[in-house]
Amino acid sequence: MKFKEGDAVLIVYRDRKYLKVLTKDFNLSVMGNTLTYSDLLDRQEGEQVKGFLILKPTLEEILMLGFKRKTQVVYPKDSFYIAFKLDIKDKRVLEFGTGSGAMTAVLSQLAKEVWTFEAVKDFYTNALKNWERFELCKNVKAHNMDFMESDVEDGFFDACFVDVKEPWLYVDKLRKALKSGAPCAFILPTANQVSQLLKAIDGGFGDVEVLEILHRYYKVNPDRLRPEDRMVAHTGYLVFCRKTT
Amino acid sequence: MKFKEGDAVLIVYRDRKYLKVLTKDFNLSVMGNTLTYSDLLDRQEGEQVKGFLILKPTLEEILMLGFKRKTQVVYPKDSFYIAFKLDIKDKRVLEFGTGSGAMTAVLSQLAKEVWTFEAVKDFYTNALKNWERFELCKNVKAHNMDFMESDVEDGFFDACFVDVKEPWLYVDKLRKALKSGAPCAFILPTANQVSQLLKAIDGGFGDVEVLEILHRYYKVNPDRLRPEDRMVAHTGYLVFCRKTT
Amino acid sequence: MKFKEGDAVLIVYRDRKYLKVLTKDFNLSVMGNTLTYSDLLDRQEGEQVKGFLILKPTLEEILMLGFKRKTQVVYPKDSFYIAFKLDIKDKRVLEFGTGSGAMTAVLSQLAKEVWTFEAVKDFYTNALKNWERFELCKNVKAHNMDFMESDVEDGFFDACFVDVKEPWLYVDKLRKALKSGAPCAFILPTANQVSQLLKAIDGGFGDVEVLEILHRYYKVNPDRLRPEDRMVAHTGYLVFCRKTT
Amino acid sequence: MKFKEGDAVLIVYRDRKYLKVLTKDFNLSVMGNTLTYSDLLDRQEGEQVKGFLILKPTLEEILMLGFKRKTQVVYPKDSFYIAFKLDIKDKRVLEFGTGSGAMTAVLSQLAKEVWTFEAVKDFYTNALKNWERFELCKNVKAHNMDFMESDVEDGFFDACFVDVKEPWLYVDKLRKALKSGAPCAFILPTANQVSQLLKAIDGGFGDVEVLEILHRYYKVNPDRLRPEDRMVAHTGYLVFCRKTT
Repeated sequence: MKFKEGDAVLIVYRDRKYLKVLTKDFNLSVMGNTLTYSDLLDRQEGEQVKGFLILKPTLEEILMLGFKRKTQVVYPKDSFYIAFKLDIKDKRVLEFGTGSGAMTAVLSQLAKEVWTFEAVKDFYTNALKNWERFELCKNVKAHNMDFMESDVEDGFFDACFVDVKEPWLYVDKLRKALKSGAPCAFILPTANQVSQLLKAIDGGFGDVEVLEILHRYYKVNPDRLRPEDRMVAHTGYLVFCRKTT
Repeated sequence: MKFKEGDAVLIVYRDRKYLKVLTKDFNLSVMGNTLTYSDLLDRQEGEQVKGFLILKPTLEEILMLGFKRKTQVVYPKDSFYIAFKLDIKDKRVLEFGTGSGAMTAVLSQLAKEVWTFEAVKDFYTNALKNWERFELCKNVKAHNMDFMESDVEDGFFDACFVDVKEPWLYVDKLRKALKSGAPCAFILPTANQVSQLLKAIDGGFGDVEVLEILHRYYKVNPDRLRPEDRMVAHTGYLVFCRKTT
Repeated sequence: MKFKEGDAVLIVYRDRKYLKVLTKDFNLSVMGNTLTYSDLLDRQEGEQVKGFLILKPTLEEILMLGFKRKTQVVYPKDSFYIAFKLDIKDKRVLEFGTGSGAMTAVLSQLAKEVWTFEAVKDFYTNALKNWERFELCKNVKAHNMDFMESDVEDGFFDACFVDVKEPWLYVDKLRKALKSGAPCAFILPTANQVSQLLKAIDGGFGDVEVLEILHRYYKVNPDRLRPEDRMVAHTGYLVFCRKTT
Repeated sequence: MKFKEGDAVLIVYRDRKYLKVLTKDFNLSVMGNTLTYSDLLDRQEGEQVKGFLILKPTLEEILMLGFKRKTQVVYPKDSFYIAFKLDIKDKRVLEFGTGSGAMTAVLSQLAKEVWTFEAVKDFYTNALKNWERFELCKNVKAHNMDFMESDVEDGFFDACFVDVKEPWLYVDKLRKALKSGAPCAFILPTANQVSQLLKAIDGGFGDVEVLEILHRYYKVNPDRLRPEDRMVAHTGYLVFCRKTT
C-alpha cells in the first residue's frame, strides 16, 4: 500500500515510534531530522525515508499509541491473551466497562458481535471516537449505561469480559445474562480485589484460574543479547472462570 | 448446548482437567469417582455431574489437551499474543513449519486464510488429523513441503509466522514472499538462535522486537491468595519484525 | 582438604547432587555407577571419582540437602538476601520461630549473636540437631519457647527476623524488644497475610518494603543457552521495615 | 544511637530516601519541608523529625545511595546472594575487578580477608574512598593491578568473584590461584558472554550453575496490595562453579 492523505502512519526512528495521521500540515522532527507531508505521500509501507521507517500501524500500535485514553487501558499483553482464552470466535460477547475501548477492539476482531456497556458518558464518547478514527469495532453494540441498568435476555451471551472496580456487585446480574458454561474474564489491579471476587463467584462459577502475564523485552543486539534494564512489572491480575448451571 | 455422542467434552475435577470424546464406551475414573456415557449424555454444559464439572472445551483446552503432539507445540501463552501481534484480521498469512498445527489453529481464527508448510510427512498428517478432529482450520491451505521448495508469488503474504530450527536459512525466500511492511514472528528456544536470526534479518527487516512471555498462576483461595509454587519458566524467545523494502 | 571418615561430602553427578556423610558403610549408586567408602577416603575436594565430582558442601547445599526439615524452610534465595538486608554484622539478632533452623544458620554467619525462639519442642530439637551435625550456629542462643512468653530487656536487639503464621500478634512485644531504628524482616506465604501485617506495623514501624525474589536458572549449554523449562515461582513475600520511636 | 556531626544519616520521606553526612551546613528540602543540622543533631535513630524518618543507613543503603560510582556496581540483589553462595565465612577470597568496591564491601562482611584487584587507577582510588567514607573493608587487601599481572601463590584462595568484561581470558590464571573445590562466581550482562565463559571453564571447573535474580517490589498499601508498575528486569547473569582438580 502507498500512503495517502488521511492515512494513519507509524513512523519508527531507532527505538522510538510515532503514530500520526498524514495531513497536509504533517510535520515530525526527531533529533534534528524532519519529515513532512510530501516526504510521506505516495511512499510505500516498509520504506526508509530520511532514516525513518514508515509502516501501517498494527492493532497493537493503534491501541498503544493511537487511542486517546481517559481510563487505564487493558494492555495488549493482557487483552490478546484474554480474547482467545474466552473462545469467542463467531460468538456474542458481553463487556463492561468499555473504558477507552481498547479491549473492545480486540474482542471485536474475533467475536461475531460485542455488546459493551460504559456508565460514564465521557469514556463512552471517547471510546466511540477511538474506534471511528481507526475504523474498528463495526460489530460492536455500545451502550452508555451501567450494565446493572441494562435489560438483556437471560442466557444471551456466550462469554464476557469485566473491567470494573467492584465486579463482585455484578455477579448475579452477570450470571443471568450468560449461557451456561460461558467463559468469563476479569481484570483487577489489586490482590485484595482478587480475593473479594473469588468469594463472590464461588458457587455460581467453576474452573477458576488466576494469573498474571509478564512480558520481558530484550535489547536487539545480536552480539550483546540481554534483557532490557527495566520492564512493566504489573498491569493487573486476570481471573478466568466458567458459568455453572 | 447439551452433550451428545461424538462431542468433545472437558471434564474438570478440582484442579484436574480431562478432554474426552463422548463415545458409548466412555469411562473416566478419578479418585474413586466414575463417569460413564449415560452420565454425560444430554447433560448441559456447565452442569456438575457426580462432582465433575462438564464443559465444552475452549480453543486453549483443545490445543493443550486435545491435540496429539509429534513436535513441541507453540503454547497458548505465546500463540495468542503472536496471532494478534501479526495484525492478521482478514489477511493472508504464511506459516512454516506447521508442526502439530497448534499455532495454525490460532492464526486461522483471525486470518482470512493461512498457508502452512511442513516438510515432515508424519507431522503434516498429524496436524491435519488434529484439525479435523476438532473441526478447525477450514481456511488453511496445508502443504507437505519445505517452504524452501514452495513456489509462491512475490509479495503474496501479509504476514508470517516461522517456527523452524534454522530460520536464518529462509530469510531471503521469506522476504520475497512477503508484502512490504508485513509483520513477521519467529519463535526460538535458545538465545544463540536469537542472536543468529537477528544477524540474518538485519538490513531486510526493521522495527525488531525480542521478548519472552511469562504466565504466573495463583492458587485459587481467596483467604490464602498466593502464586503457585512452580511455573513454566521458558518456552521460547519471540522475535517480531517488519519487512522493509 | 582430603575427605576422611565422618566428613560431609557433596557428590555431583551431572545435574544431580547428593549430600552424604562419609561412613564406612557409605554406598551411593546412580545410573549404574557405584561409589563406596574406599573410593572417597583421602580423595581431595574437587576430584572426579568414577564420573562423580566430590566436593565439600557449601552452606547453601547443607541447608537444601543436609538439613532435616520438620517445617517449611526459608530458602537460600530469600535467606541470603534477608541476612545482609538486616545489616547485622557484629550485631545481636532476634529470630522467631526457629523452624528447622535454616535461617538461623544464615543469620549466625553475619551476626555477633542470634537469639532464636521456637515454641514447638519437636522443631526446636530438630533445629539443634541440624546445627550440631554440620557444626553451625555456635553463636546462637536457642529457646524452646514462644517469643510471647520470653522475658527480654527492652531495646535488647539490633534487628529481627520473624517467621510465624500470625506475626501481627507479636508486634507490640517485638517493638519493645528492639532498639529504635532496628531493621526487621518477615516472610509470609500469602498476600492476605501481607495485608494484615502491614496494618499491624503501621504507626510503630517505618520505611516499609514488600518484595518477592525470583531465581531463574539456565541450562548450562553454551551453544544452546536457554532458561530451564520450569522454575520455583513462589516461596514467600518478604516484608522489611525499621522500628520507629 | 544519637546522631552527631560527621555521621551518615538516612532520611526517609514517604517513598524517597536520601543518604547524607551530617555536617554543620547540612540542608535538605523535599516538597517544601526543610531539615537542617540542628534539626538532626542529637536526635535518636528511628525518630520522625518534621515528617522525615531518620535512620542509620544499612549496608544496602550505603551501597546504593552512598557509594560514588565510576563503574556499573553489583547490586545488593545479586551481591548478597553471591557472597553467601561462595561459602566464604572465615575464608580468603579473591575478587577482580574491584570496580566501585560495592561487591568487595559485601564479601568483606563474611570473609576473613578479601584480596581485590583493579587495573584502572581511577576506579581503584574511588573504591578506597568509598570504603573509607563508610568505615568498611578493613579486612580487604586492594591492589591497583590487573589480576593477570599479579603474583599470587598457587592454591592461595578459597573462593573468587570475577567481574570483568572478558573473564575467559583469566581462566588459567584463576585456576592456579584457587584451592581445589573453590567456589567461583562471575557476573556478566549479556547472554553471549555467558556462552563464551561456559566454553572457557569447561574441563577445569564443575558443578556449573547459571541464573538470574529478579526482585519484584509491591506498593505498601494493605487495602490495595499490588506489585509496583515497573521493576528492574536485568542487571546481569550469574555464573557459579567449583574448581576441579
